[in-house]
Amino acid sequence: MSVVAPQGFRAAGVACGIKEGGAKDLALVAAEAAVPAAATFTTNRAAAAPVVVSRAHLLATGGRAAAVLINSGCANAATGASGQRAAEASCVAVAEALGVAPEAVLVCSTGLIGRQLPVERVEAAVPGLVDRLGATPADGRAAAEAIMTTDTHPKQTLVEHSRFRVGGMAKGAGMIAPRMATMLAVLTTDAVAEPDALAGALREAVARTFNELIVDGCTSTNDTVVALASGQAGRAAFGELAEALEAACADLASQLAEDAEGTTRVATVRVVGALSDAEARQAARAVASSLLVKTSLYGADPYWGRIVSELGASGATFHLDHVSVAYGGTVVCRGGIGVAHDAEAVAAHLRGERVEITCDLALGSGAAAVLTTDLGHGYIDENMRTS
Amino acid sequence: MSVVAPQGFRAAGVACGIKEGGAKDLALVAAEAAVPAAATFTTNRAAAAPVVVSRAHLLATGGRAAAVLINSGCANAATGASGQRAAEASCVAVAEALGVAPEAVLVCSTGLIGRQLPVERVEAAVPGLVDRLGATPADGRAAAEAIMTTDTHPKQTLVEHSRFRVGGMAKGAGMIAPRMATMLAVLTTDAVAEPDALAGALREAVARTFNELIVDGCTSTNDTVVALASGQAGRAAFGELAEALEAACADLASQLAEDAEGTTRVATVRVVGALSDAEARQAARAVASSLLVKTSLYGADPYWGRIVSELGASGATFHLDHVSVAYGGTVVCRGGIGVAHDAEAVAAHLRGERVEITCDLALGSGAAAVLTTDLGHGYIDENMRTS
Repeated sequence: MSVVAPQGFRAAGVACGIKEGGAKDLALVAAEAAVPAAATFTTNRAAAAPVVVSRAHLLATGGRAAAVLINSGCANAATGASGQRAAEASCVAVAEALGVAPEAVLVCSTGLIGRQLPVERVEAAVPGLVDRLGATPADGRAAAEAIMTTDTHPKQTLVEHSRFRVGGMAKGAGMIAPRMATMLAVLTTDAVAEPDALAGALREAVARTFNELIVDGCTSTNDTVVALASGQAGRAAFGELAEALEAACADLASQLAEDAEGTTRVATVRVVGALSDAEARQAARAVASSLLVKTSLYGADPYWGRIVSELGASGATFHLDHVSVAYGGTVVCRGGIGVAHDAEAVAAHLRGERVEITCDLALGSGAAAVLTTDLGHGYIDENMRTS
Repeated sequence: MSVVAPQGFRAAGVACGIKEGGAKDLALVAAEAAVPAAATFTTNRAAAAPVVVSRAHLLATGGRAAAVLINSGCANAATGASGQRAAEASCVAVAEALGVAPEAVLVCSTGLIGRQLPVERVEAAVPGLVDRLGATPADGRAAAEAIMTTDTHPKQTLVEHSRFRVGGMAKGAGMIAPRMATMLAVLTTDAVAEPDALAGALREAVARTFNELIVDGCTSTNDTVVALASGQAGRAAFGELAEALEAACADLASQLAEDAEGTTRVATVRVVGALSDAEARQAARAVASSLLVKTSLYGADPYWGRIVSELGASGATFHLDHVSVAYGGTVVCRGGIGVAHDAEAVAAHLRGERVEITCDLALGSGAAAVLTTDLGHGYIDENMRTS
């Protein structure tokens, strides 16, 4: 149920003093040597130092890595040249302790932007962290705990295929939007997979899962998803690997949505009948991103007019007199106008923790689904002050 | 200080029974005959019936109108063919009472989407509404009150030019985003202006004011700004008219921001040093739309990292090591990293009701400014339930 479930991986998580109060803040996931590795990174042009460094390392090795070091409590973003040196020094520390090249180490950071990483604490902690590396569930959990920020619990996953496993951990409770990885995640698999195949399968998996989750529409400076393939189990066909990675990512994305800052309710916005899948996605994202729709979800308010309005404003091809909207299978709007329906069934569905909104544009066969969260007082309380 | 301040206009506002509780819900602004008229309408493809009808009427008359009828309490959007007939019937009722052609009447609605307009109440009220038309400040105020929805007070404006006046009224406290008119407004002027010039000047004015205001990023189904020119005062050069309309719209937009749902603080996000004005606008809108930035504003939190992150995610050309950010003139980030600054000055500025955020991308001479509001508990309370 963690990154150490596939064969050939060890993990550890410790407190190195970046976070105040002694909470775990430094995690390491290590293979036995440099193995095929792939990653997707934030599209934010203010990418953090660890993103810049990890991207360069993967390029230098042609898609191989032996370890991923992750710290929470500091994003090491908007930290200039000294931040860059800190990210590189962190990799060097791990490389020396593991006896691999610095380029074989990837690094991720998460936390507040604009603060310098106390790199001496990281360097001091790395030898102990490497000593603690282990493959028990407790080791995996310690790593998953060490990467948490405002998460209320660690997120881990395991997908079992007949010939290989995919394990994973993720963190992220805010700054989640669909334009790349949208949070930090590390996936491990013991499947045999070449770097290119791993990269392609990861891209597909991320596009269909993390990138279809909208919490607040913000694309962070640090988003990274890393996948490592130890090759100690069976060979995976591309489709099998992609499917298993997608299942692992989908499980983690769902856990992220449920634990998003201040969330009381998670909704799937499904758009069907669009002219294309791309237009369906565009329309679904517009509904899923809407402050008014998200606030209605918080209030369990069956105000479908906001959904129709967002569909109309989305830019997707749209004819008002074709559209229908359903909550949990109960159609409330058909042909662009309200229809008689079982209001109690809708109310009961909206009061639940999982809401299904289906919008049929009745124009073609394009379809897409996006996961979103409600917007309520908890989000405001969580985000109004960081210091 | 209202739509009746320019010569040649009368107004009235009454309660016709659309809103429960007897609040005013029907307004009329009338010229003495069909005069040059222009309008900008929502870009939402789920445009409401009154938008469809008013657009057709302006096209039929070649840009002339004698009156604008506005109801609150019902958007007449997502109401199908019967909604369309209701909007047309409303125009006919006004046309008969005023003795003008139905096409010379424009109609606007605001309120909940998906409910049928009780058009018989509108028709019954129109003769009395026409009888009440007057040109006193109280008449203008009654019209401004009748168009309110969640607004806490009426919004009116007056711009005095040496040879003409521009008066105006507006409503709107939510569903405000920059993609067109973003609310309802009626502007009147006694300047002599041809329909084409009026339309051009209005487009410019709306683009620089209402369309640079972001409350929640939602583009409503009903947004409309109408301008009527009675021609009873002096002739206006295009630039003079555009300038006066812009001043009137800017004043109304500022009033809308201050009265936006649940707002405690209004911020101007200014981006300078962009490669172009368009890129500056793109970057400023990204910052101004960000839930995290808006929530920070609510908490008076000087977390500039979120601003840098939104600039980086905006799609505008951006180099992290060039960017600087200032709150109220105090630079907190320069060259992409935090700099020592007067934290007390920043804190005091952020606690005020008007915040200035200036972002210098240091790449070119493109500049833009966008008005935004904070996001706090009031917005949630106001929008979580509509029924």
